[in-house]
Amino acid sequence: MIAGIIGAAGYAGSELIRLLSGHPEITGLVLASVSRPGENIASIYPNFLGPGKMKNNPALAKFGNAGSTLTTPEELVARSDVVFGALPAGTGEGYAKASLDRGISYIDLSADFRFDDDEETYRSWYGIPWQYPELHRRSVYGLPELNRNRIKEAGSPVIIGNPGCYPTAVTLACYPALAEAGGNNSKSSIKPVSAPIIAAAVSGVTGAGREPGRVQHFPECSDSVSAYKVGSHRHIPEISRTMTKIAGRTISLVFTPHLGPLNRGILATVYISLEQPPKAGSVQPQTKEAAEKETAIREQYALFYKDEPFVRVLPKTVTAATNRVRQSNYCDMSIHLDHTGSVLIVVSAIDNMVKGAAGQAVQNMNIIFGFDETAGLTAVPALF
Amino acid sequence: MIAGIIGAAGYAGSELIRLLSGHPEITGLVLASVSRPGENIASIYPNFLGPGKMKNNPALAKFGNAGSTLTTPEELVARSDVVFGALPAGTGEGYAKASLDRGISYIDLSADFRFDDDEETYRSWYGIPWQYPELHRRSVYGLPELNRNRIKEAGSPVIIGNPGCYPTAVTLACYPALAEAGGNNSKSSIKPVSAPIIAAAVSGVTGAGREPGRVQHFPECSDSVSAYKVGSHRHIPEISRTMTKIAGRTISLVFTPHLGPLNRGILATVYISLEQPPKAGSVQPQTKEAAEKETAIREQYALFYKDEPFVRVLPKTVTAATNRVRQSNYCDMSIHLDHTGSVLIVVSAIDNMVKGAAGQAVQNMNIIFGFDETAGLTAVPALF
Amino acid sequence: MIAGIIGAAGYAGSELIRLLSGHPEITGLVLASVSRPGENIASIYPNFLGPGKMKNNPALAKFGNAGSTLTTPEELVARSDVVFGALPAGTGEGYAKASLDRGISYIDLSADFRFDDDEETYRSWYGIPWQYPELHRRSVYGLPELNRNRIKEAGSPVIIGNPGCYPTAVTLACYPALAEAGGNNSKSSIKPVSAPIIAAAVSGVTGAGREPGRVQHFPECSDSVSAYKVGSHRHIPEISRTMTKIAGRTISLVFTPHLGPLNRGILATVYISLEQPPKAGSVQPQTKEAAEKETAIREQYALFYKDEPFVRVLPKTVTAATNRVRQSNYCDMSIHLDHTGSVLIVVSAIDNMVKGAAGQAVQNMNIIFGFDETAGLTAVPALF
Amino acid sequence: MIAGIIGAAGYAGSELIRLLSGHPEITGLVLASVSRPGENIASIYPNFLGPGKMKNNPALAKFGNAGSTLTTPEELVARSDVVFGALPAGTGEGYAKASLDRGISYIDLSADFRFDDDEETYRSWYGIPWQYPELHRRSVYGLPELNRNRIKEAGSPVIIGNPGCYPTAVTLACYPALAEAGGNNSKSSIKPVSAPIIAAAVSGVTGAGREPGRVQHFPECSDSVSAYKVGSHRHIPEISRTMTKIAGRTISLVFTPHLGPLNRGILATVYISLEQPPKAGSVQPQTKEAAEKETAIREQYALFYKDEPFVRVLPKTVTAATNRVRQSNYCDMSIHLDHTGSVLIVVSAIDNMVKGAAGQAVQNMNIIFGFDETAGLTAVPALF
Repeated sequence: MIAGIIGAAGYAGSELIRLLSGHPEITGLVLASVSRPGENIASIYPNFLGPGKMKNNPALAKFGNAGSTLTTPEELVARSDVVFGALPAGTGEGYAKASLDRGISYIDLSADFRFDDDEETYRSWYGIPWQYPELHRRSVYGLPELNRNRIKEAGSPVIIGNPGCYPTAVTLACYPALAEAGGNNSKSSIKPVSAPIIAAAVSGVTGAGREPGRVQHFPECSDSVSAYKVGSHRHIPEISRTMTKIAGRTISLVFTPHLGPLNRGILATVYISLEQPPKAGSVQPQTKEAAEKETAIREQYALFYKDEPFVRVLPKTVTAATNRVRQSNYCDMSIHLDHTGSVLIVVSAIDNMVKGAAGQAVQNMNIIFGFDETAGLTAVPALF
Repeated sequence: MIAGIIGAAGYAGSELIRLLSGHPEITGLVLASVSRPGENIASIYPNFLGPGKMKNNPALAKFGNAGSTLTTPEELVARSDVVFGALPAGTGEGYAKASLDRGISYIDLSADFRFDDDEETYRSWYGIPWQYPELHRRSVYGLPELNRNRIKEAGSPVIIGNPGCYPTAVTLACYPALAEAGGNNSKSSIKPVSAPIIAAAVSGVTGAGREPGRVQHFPECSDSVSAYKVGSHRHIPEISRTMTKIAGRTISLVFTPHLGPLNRGILATVYISLEQPPKAGSVQPQTKEAAEKETAIREQYALFYKDEPFVRVLPKTVTAATNRVRQSNYCDMSIHLDHTGSVLIVVSAIDNMVKGAAGQAVQNMNIIFGFDETAGLTAVPALF
Repeated sequence: MIAGIIGAAGYAGSELIRLLSGHPEITGLVLASVSRPGENIASIYPNFLGPGKMKNNPALAKFGNAGSTLTTPEELVARSDVVFGALPAGTGEGYAKASLDRGISYIDLSADFRFDDDEETYRSWYGIPWQYPELHRRSVYGLPELNRNRIKEAGSPVIIGNPGCYPTAVTLACYPALAEAGGNNSKSSIKPVSAPIIAAAVSGVTGAGREPGRVQHFPECSDSVSAYKVGSHRHIPEISRTMTKIAGRTISLVFTPHLGPLNRGILATVYISLEQPPKAGSVQPQTKEAAEKETAIREQYALFYKDEPFVRVLPKTVTAATNRVRQSNYCDMSIHLDHTGSVLIVVSAIDNMVKGAAGQAVQNMNIIFGFDETAGLTAVPALF
Repeated sequence: MIAGIIGAAGYAGSELIRLLSGHPEITGLVLASVSRPGENIASIYPNFLGPGKMKNNPALAKFGNAGSTLTTPEELVARSDVVFGALPAGTGEGYAKASLDRGISYIDLSADFRFDDDEETYRSWYGIPWQYPELHRRSVYGLPELNRNRIKEAGSPVIIGNPGCYPTAVTLACYPALAEAGGNNSKSSIKPVSAPIIAAAVSGVTGAGREPGRVQHFPECSDSVSAYKVGSHRHIPEISRTMTKIAGRTISLVFTPHLGPLNRGILATVYISLEQPPKAGSVQPQTKEAAEKETAIREQYALFYKDEPFVRVLPKTVTAATNRVRQSNYCDMSIHLDHTGSVLIVVSAIDNMVKGAAGQAVQNMNIIFGFDETAGLTAVPALF
């Protein structure tokens, strides 16, 4: 099967190259760039250069010969069996339409197809109207843990709105708490109250993309951590609407992204109020009752995700860290109760370029085509 | 004036050396180590080695000759005019007593004197009883922005419980909101509701001290971010009790520390609920009303801290980052409202080794002795 | 085929797990530890934890079930078809003997089998005598670019002395220059004079292994670069003897290792004097003649390595960097002449944990067993 | 005294602000920018923002009020008592002339005044002719360890060509070896032969300045080390000509700069051949004779620099590292002989922004005006 990547010169595009070149079902790659057609991908990414004897590397062979020169998006659509769009928001609708018109699926890594038919919310946060509103009604939000069946049942061709990096980390951290509290599970240990869910996340610098800027300038971001777009990041409506769907009631979200001096990874810490804290004047460490409740919730999370190939609910002794999911499609999460026992704290870790972008897109492709869902995504995480 | 540093071989001790050697009122330093008396400080910290012509460096001259060999704590107390204790929790009470007995002040950088007379809370979190309970009644919690007058009025000799790094960053971020809401200021824009305050913070690795361990092993913490002691860190009771004092009512705190791949710095993000969020189904960006409210709160914060030499309430265009306070005693804070306008988000940044430890200790010394409060602490932050 | 890894708890061992779990010819892994038998590998490396549905990850399945508990080296040898020894120098000879006695090959990642039968040199640098000198006569130095045929012809079982990380980077950088100058190639552009070869290299911190120590303590090695074991590193005799073999005359080497704040990677810069520099008083940029000579040498290098699957001689526009070989088995090298045209400068980059350790060991295994030499090593480098 | 900084918005300019604001003889700063007059320095560098009560910070007071708005270079010259030019090569001659015409000294941090009257060499490497050749004859190369007396005797006003960062680290490492071998010291242990001096250096990313670019983009330079401008860097002629002056004979230099993932610091490793290496076939560790020779050379270096306030010849147990000179004006150097005893290896470390730029400029100012040479430069290095 031939996979096409529009936006191959960007970071998400380069990560798709890396993952798809090792995918057992992909026999060739077609790469395109809107702004740089005609260039060789290895002149942009010399890490993709072939060795003297390239034929010995089957991964390189997939894109190292015919595929190595960037083509135009139009030609790419004509030559591919599935298309990945790794483009800025507001620029991919036309390629989605062209793909569908040709009868092939389009997996979009931008925000364009993450809002079903809710153009108003999209436009109020992204400032761009939709060109083909009817396409959006045919799209599926590609969070497999939530929508696996919808993706399977959508039928080909389909448009996938691949989730954002922060939404993936935050939503997976909240999903069991919100779903299980939905009235159906009377034995659930998790009973969220109606307070807003607070989510703080730290992202690596690759999240800001390939274009150099002051914020990503090494001397001004290394050895430092900062917050940005506090309470106003565009991923807020994406997360809120998914949470609201899961819970079956309006969920209010407060979200603060931070930038840390790391290449890859997102660590999200999510606070879900379960009940009012006790009024006691003195502050004591976690009680035995709270510890037992914490254990029960951890087990409930583990049970909830037991069949998921890429979610790891960590044992009590391990707290989530981004280096344990490096270059893998895993979402790790550790489960904690605060010292008063009234707030559930879930810490989740993903690789923003894999589960937060290219890996999840490959996972969606696997589901669409009925491949093993882990195909091309079985690499063990590299701790360092 | 001669300053003594017990625990000079640790990181907080070495930072005290760095700051006090440039202090205009300090004419000499005496260094002591409980475990390594007799060693030369420059064999532990070769960055403190003197050049060929040491007499030209007045900073080095303060400790480079007689002071360069580590002495015992007992001898240090006998030779000093003020004593800094940079020791593990539970080990400094004896030196505090010896200092007071000699009539000199003791500034303690551990947690031992941060709880006034509340031995129960200290013991339940630190697991150590107090040896000299009466000393604690004579101690003052050394957060100058809160207790400047208490420190001035305590009279010499005094024991200062120098605040923890996280408590400094979190408490200063909440102080105006909690103080101004205390009923006295009916025009305040800030009206916290009774929900718990959520605080997430990222710390640099120096916070874990000088002893090598797996968590601080470069290959396992660089290029990664993680959480630790989630909801159970020992700084929780310290922060809670100060907040409760400020607010005049019980404040519940949920606190999660994180470790980031940076040497110095703490970035704390604090969420203070002002009211219930609107129930509206769709999620919209910040409204004009919310933006005005945000501006009003920022101005209220700026006014609150207008006479503070080390607190900078940042303009709207700047968000707090640790590299802008590097090696300075500043606490920077940026003020934000979430998109619904119902949660106040304050992001504060300090250098954990300066305002979070040694610098604040020097600031306390300046207050005790009536020096200019900024003496020895005027260095402009080094962005990189 | 079942592969056994003795020393699986160390960094080289963990990297072997990562690579071999994705190797198409390996059906199972047996892991052993001398000091920690009985522990589960995932309690040491939580990145290796299985997800809920582990059966979906064929990589984990190879060691996630029976193989997940560390066994003893003795039992490992009994259960494996090939054994990798990732142990400190001086501790693996017995396991090599046991493997050979059982008729299986032993690939040693320590320095023990890198010196053929030259026990004197080994002992003078490592301070340890050999227990089984006869084993060493049956060993082959496993630098495939140099000894591929010797490895193939050795017959099974064989002992491989897998090269050190610095020796791999430095030797590959010098190999064409020394080999081509050996009298056989009268048209060579490269004519080294008898001056010592100078090699400077920077290594990532994983090179120092998993045990925490002051040198690898984040606050004392991050954001800093240092030299160590200047002119006295144990890799000197290993490199010298290989160079001398290649050149057919005694080659003198001066080598300085440095430590840089990166996890993985070695960048080696090697200086080979081609002739005496001109005596001209004024210093001018590279002349046209020198530029042409540089191009000729680059082409000669490219030709020399044209059939190598893992050596990339970079085009003129690209200079070697460690991030372009990250997590791959490549050795990149860029070719330069100094401004006077008299010194050849080769900059080579490897991933110290892959081509400098585990990857090269897998490459050697592939050669021994007649697998495709790139099997299990085809992953495209991850730039970040 | 009022100091003016042209190019205050660049990194070297910002470092001059940091150092001069703490200088006891400087009472005010005037800041100028060629491209951004009218902007406030704190909008470019928010780390320079004043706190609420700025008057308490005497350092900020120097530039925080009148001086905080960037003026034009012309106005700056009119208002200053000494001018620092922190500008790109080829743009500062006019300001040097204007300063001299006004009777005030000009300290140039670019390469423009580092070549005495040798315009040909400057032009062949920098590609720019001189506008005022006569100015260059009045300039002094500002390496105080070499030219202290020339600077003192030049008389005011003077133009100082402040040395480059690499030239400072490399030249100081070679100075004793080349000077002592000059025939005058028959008892010297150091007898360089006529082979080229090889210098390899790793620099932090601040060396590339404030403008974002791909090379300094965090995801492409963090966790990686690379070489650049191999054998062709513009600092080569600057270093060569100084070495040649010191030695009294033509010294050939081969120089390779590298980029490492650190903010500040240069580590230079310099190889000086003392004699032909022995021809012995086997490679042995350093002999007792070589160790004694190494000690003698170290002592000779220490003696050579004994009166220097900023050069530290390290004891045998300490090897140079950039974090031990962080934010200080020190040049550390460790002295080694290779294992054969025939090549002297000197490793030197500086902070590229201090001794390699702004600090050395301040040191030159101190010499010109007869201040204590360490004034404003006494801060103890911050290890982290």
